[in-house]
Amino acid sequence: MKAVRFPTHLKPLEPHGSTLLALEREKTSFDSNELMLHLYGKDYLAKRDRILAIMQNDPILSNKSHRYYQGRHARFKQSLAAAQRMVILSKKHGWTDEEFGMAEYLFDEPSAFRLHRSMFMPTILNQGTEEQKRIFLEPAKRYEIIGCYAQTELGHGSNVRGLETTATYHPETETFEINSPTLTSSKWWIGGLGVAANHAVVMARLISDGKDHGPHPFVVQIRSLENHAPLKGITVGDIGPKFGFNTVDNGFILFDHVHVPHHAMLARYSSVDKKTGRYITPPNSKLAYGTMVYVRANIVLESCQVLARAATVATRYSAVRMQGSDTDQPKTWPGADNATKAIETPVLDYTMQQYRLLPIIAQAYACHFTGQEMHRMYHENQAKMAAGDFSYLADLHASSSGLKSLTTTMAVAAIEDCRRACGGHGYSLFSGLGQFYQDYLPKATWEGDNYLLTQQTTRYLLKTFRSIRSNKGTKSSNFTSDYLADYLAAPHARCTDIQVDSGLTQNPDWILAAFRHRAAFLVDKLAHAIDQDGHTWNDCLVEIYRVSRSHCQLMMVYHFFKTAFQPSSASSPMQVTLKRMAILFSLFTMEQDISDFMISGYFSSDQAWLIKQSIVPLLKLLRPDAVALVDAFGLPDYLLFSALGESQGQVYEKMTEMAEKEPLNSGQAMELYQQFIRPLTHQNQSLSRGDARL
Amino acid sequence: MKAVRFPTHLKPLEPHGSTLLALEREKTSFDSNELMLHLYGKDYLAKRDRILAIMQNDPILSNKSHRYYQGRHARFKQSLAAAQRMVILSKKHGWTDEEFGMAEYLFDEPSAFRLHRSMFMPTILNQGTEEQKRIFLEPAKRYEIIGCYAQTELGHGSNVRGLETTATYHPETETFEINSPTLTSSKWWIGGLGVAANHAVVMARLISDGKDHGPHPFVVQIRSLENHAPLKGITVGDIGPKFGFNTVDNGFILFDHVHVPHHAMLARYSSVDKKTGRYITPPNSKLAYGTMVYVRANIVLESCQVLARAATVATRYSAVRMQGSDTDQPKTWPGADNATKAIETPVLDYTMQQYRLLPIIAQAYACHFTGQEMHRMYHENQAKMAAGDFSYLADLHASSSGLKSLTTTMAVAAIEDCRRACGGHGYSLFSGLGQFYQDYLPKATWEGDNYLLTQQTTRYLLKTFRSIRSNKGTKSSNFTSDYLADYLAAPHARCTDIQVDSGLTQNPDWILAAFRHRAAFLVDKLAHAIDQDGHTWNDCLVEIYRVSRSHCQLMMVYHFFKTAFQPSSASSPMQVTLKRMAILFSLFTMEQDISDFMISGYFSSDQAWLIKQSIVPLLKLLRPDAVALVDAFGLPDYLLFSALGESQGQVYEKMTEMAEKEPLNSGQAMELYQQFIRPLTHQNQSLSRGDARL
Repeated sequence: MKAVRFPTHLKPLEPHGSTLLALEREKTSFDSNELMLHLYGKDYLAKRDRILAIMQNDPILSNKSHRYYQGRHARFKQSLAAAQRMVILSKKHGWTDEEFGMAEYLFDEPSAFRLHRSMFMPTILNQGTEEQKRIFLEPAKRYEIIGCYAQTELGHGSNVRGLETTATYHPETETFEINSPTLTSSKWWIGGLGVAANHAVVMARLISDGKDHGPHPFVVQIRSLENHAPLKGITVGDIGPKFGFNTVDNGFILFDHVHVPHHAMLARYSSVDKKTGRYITPPNSKLAYGTMVYVRANIVLESCQVLARAATVATRYSAVRMQGSDTDQPKTWPGADNATKAIETPVLDYTMQQYRLLPIIAQAYACHFTGQEMHRMYHENQAKMAAGDFSYLADLHASSSGLKSLTTTMAVAAIEDCRRACGGHGYSLFSGLGQFYQDYLPKATWEGDNYLLTQQTTRYLLKTFRSIRSNKGTKSSNFTSDYLADYLAAPHARCTDIQVDSGLTQNPDWILAAFRHRAAFLVDKLAHAIDQDGHTWNDCLVEIYRVSRSHCQLMMVYHFFKTAFQPSSASSPMQVTLKRMAILFSLFTMEQDISDFMISGYFSSDQAWLIKQSIVPLLKLLRPDAVALVDAFGLPDYLLFSALGESQGQVYEKMTEMAEKEPLNSGQAMELYQQFIRPLTHQNQSLSRGDARL
Repeated sequence: MKAVRFPTHLKPLEPHGSTLLALEREKTSFDSNELMLHLYGKDYLAKRDRILAIMQNDPILSNKSHRYYQGRHARFKQSLAAAQRMVILSKKHGWTDEEFGMAEYLFDEPSAFRLHRSMFMPTILNQGTEEQKRIFLEPAKRYEIIGCYAQTELGHGSNVRGLETTATYHPETETFEINSPTLTSSKWWIGGLGVAANHAVVMARLISDGKDHGPHPFVVQIRSLENHAPLKGITVGDIGPKFGFNTVDNGFILFDHVHVPHHAMLARYSSVDKKTGRYITPPNSKLAYGTMVYVRANIVLESCQVLARAATVATRYSAVRMQGSDTDQPKTWPGADNATKAIETPVLDYTMQQYRLLPIIAQAYACHFTGQEMHRMYHENQAKMAAGDFSYLADLHASSSGLKSLTTTMAVAAIEDCRRACGGHGYSLFSGLGQFYQDYLPKATWEGDNYLLTQQTTRYLLKTFRSIRSNKGTKSSNFTSDYLADYLAAPHARCTDIQVDSGLTQNPDWILAAFRHRAAFLVDKLAHAIDQDGHTWNDCLVEIYRVSRSHCQLMMVYHFFKTAFQPSSASSPMQVTLKRMAILFSLFTMEQDISDFMISGYFSSDQAWLIKQSIVPLLKLLRPDAVALVDAFGLPDYLLFSALGESQGQVYEKMTEMAEKEPLNSGQAMELYQQFIRPLTHQNQSLSRGDARL
């Protein structure tokens, strides 16, 4: 049977998507290229384009067309081939870690080797001795050994102290005995372990000298380097299919009294004396927290890219997708014989669609500028720590925890919101948003569960608040202590402007003051509940989450304002739009939780109502720049891999092109008919109807 | 290579999940069986259990174990076999439509024949003449012809008036010429069309007598009944992979000037004169709106089942999953030698987890009782309409639109919230929530887009409001006109109780009064914006959505209260819990939008704060009944098909059992190693490391 092909003479209804997108790009108030340069800088873009060209011209990596059709196993196989290819290319072109990261980002498919690079090698680098680096890291860099990072267990996730796997030291044999005492102690979810890895960093409770010293990292060979068979005492495999991330072989592993040498325990910080088994405690190092800030700044920047990608697809498609009619402003189009004809309205013209999409674009920008600020502060803090000054660290670490939680929660929601904003076609994998959502989702759980993380942020805020309240002051003032102190000086402050006018709701200082007061108010209320009313920590978990969120929303508003309203570049059209986006981000965020601002007494009912009313006019102002604002993210079509978000608006051509590749359209359907349909339709052989249609 | 097997001697860490669930069931305050009976009634449960037994004992339908591992094509094939089997069983057992529906619900996999039953046949039944029923419906019932319902087009979704496909009548040949003029006019998303159907109801613009009469339904044969090949002029195929629903062959179809006979147009209401082509207009029938109410009542009841299923999985697993420790109430357990040992805390003991799950359980109950009330009102209305009284219809139809939108939005969110509340394992397909989410998701878009639908509800509310305001009154008072009239009599009403105490927040009348005032206030504000401030409909879409939601939240609170607080059965422990659930539903709903209640001036800041504070104590009261409340939904394990939500708490045994079935664990991994891993690890043949671990 011939494959199904769409009739080539049929074109989409006029106006064509490409025409509509071109018109959008004409009417924009600023140059999207200027903004792109402003966001990324020239060097970054040049580097990325160089990598992009390599990927797009590579025989293996240029092809993503199988992704939406294949089941897990075919995809996993193809993904392994690509991962192998990426290693080869990286050697050939001498890619730095950053460049390899760019290539992975553009290829946009997590691989079985992902954890080898992102966790196995860094853990040895950071926690191994020089000897251990020589033994494990050098061959790992050459991919002679391939590793993974085995921490979570079937019955134990975020709480590392609950891990059951043990590593008992035996001075007589100078070995650690790794053991899985129960079914729940099976390591689980370990990326790269199911198929690829031959080594693992295993987190196990160190038992030595009769004492349990809690979880420590051990490098353990798990499969033969000759034939990849699991070594003796080891049960290892893949944990099975997941909601997404199915090109990664997340695995499980159980150890049945497996002995590993003394040098298996990564010993840069804590160690065990080889002869006596005496535990040598680590020097108390705060440096690790600095690294965490760096990792989380990257997550915040990554959230920007996620939001940007989802918004790019939905915004472009909303400019092309015509549906219904705005009865107050019906659209027309030049028809064939110069007569104007009525056409439908691009959905981006509906305020509801603008309300669904523009705040997400604003969130993307907020994440970008917040992430950049975090990077700056990280470097500032590293310099201070190097000089023995740890005064920045606690604040930076606490904020970074909450910001990871806030921005990844935001990004996950945005992908799904954008997918739905694409209407029915959002549900097709060709939208490019379905698999994207599935693969990004775990970010909300790993590298710190988004609920648990907020407890760290709030614990710090409470401590700072109590310290200021009891007049002890803090060692050095910072953004956090300043706003808490300001609040304590005037806890019953109210917004003094009786009537909010549009001028005020566009004023960053006015908005920031409200966010500062609201965040501090929630800290105050929580402190009161615990310190005065005797509520337990568990009683307050819901409020603890909200306190962290409100602090981090304030941080994001502050950072976004700081960048958008810097005086130097205030005059360009681009800056005007960025300022509007910053205001939109702040007002939209405020509106979502406006009750906090009212309960604190800061805003009256009338003020709150007017704030809510100030959003739609702002959306209308920003509407003409919507496409330019997503174009400025500069996401290549190779990355998007989306029929709806394609940069030239060829939505319907791409949809049909991709549908033609559906395997059911190449003969499979006929076999299925013979096997399952025909027996039903022909069960009654007296069937009298023929094929003649008339 | 042997398949990977878990060591059989290893057991999960004590306490075992089954022990924990048994303890939960001991400490409950009421009998979950009593509640189950109260929800469903004896007859329904007996019928369902009978169907369940058939399914579970059927060689084909009892087996769901492939579902989480197969790619689209293997699953689609297996699904066709199951669909065929279901038809055979239905004939064998003489299933009614209701019983067939139960079987489909329990089997829990949409099939290629789904639309044949749910749309193709009902459309012919409702819109066909007696002759057309004889020609099309009779063979359809016997599955001699298999149909689908082709309405949406590649470029056109919810707005039926935008459809491009034409059906031009030619009196000279007495045929309609069906044609697809553009690429965007391709029918798209049509369930059952990609592979299975040989007929379609095609919605096309009827052109006759030189006029365009808008979209009408035509029954068109599309594939040969002899060999299933597409008939001449027809291009048909599958639209490709989707986010979910991949066991259905959603298809596309294009018509190149295809002629069908006069009897193809379903002519019960409107028709075309065979000889002249004159269009005969339909009698204006409101009866169709009655049916829509019925369909939507079912959707609301289905939302209950969706919420119930998600909550069942997450709640049971949260009772079994131990993580971290509530430092204020650390847990212990009898150890081996009668010494108590410290254990982790079941996550259900954390208030944040209760806050994430108990409101979802409450939403499920709210949907159940609301759906039941809608059914009752539907029958009341049908009786009235039969007597020529249409006074109920507009209100019922308007509320049902908004309730469809509200409850399906709620249900979609709940699946994902419950999945995340399962932590890392929620991401495994074995949770049973991943594919469930993917398959349920389109409900928010089809049978009325959830955003568009709310415009119908709000349009009716505005009309009623204006009519009361202008003292015209309404023909007959109903719930809606009553609360709007009460508001207009006292638009500046405030909650008179200065200090909210726990008694008041448990008082249904007190809560209901607040919801009534808030809903009416939002209608008032919207009417003001349009009527006084001259805002366009498009300007107000965001508020229009909120107005509908607030009205429907009020309806749900009202219906839930009405059932839970009916005086007759007030004394049983079951009723005490149901009342608490009704209060929880109302307070949680109120808290989410508390700013509305404040902006209207109805609640002060202090009152709002106290309302927020009243939720956690309620969660604590309900905590011991959490498992019983989900048990009462009575969802069989066959339906749940979830390792986490299994009724006996065998979470970790099921997880490992399902992981053993992962095909990568049965030899596939070794082939992949040879092909992709070994070339990397052995690229440097001077590799010096061997396998000896020591």
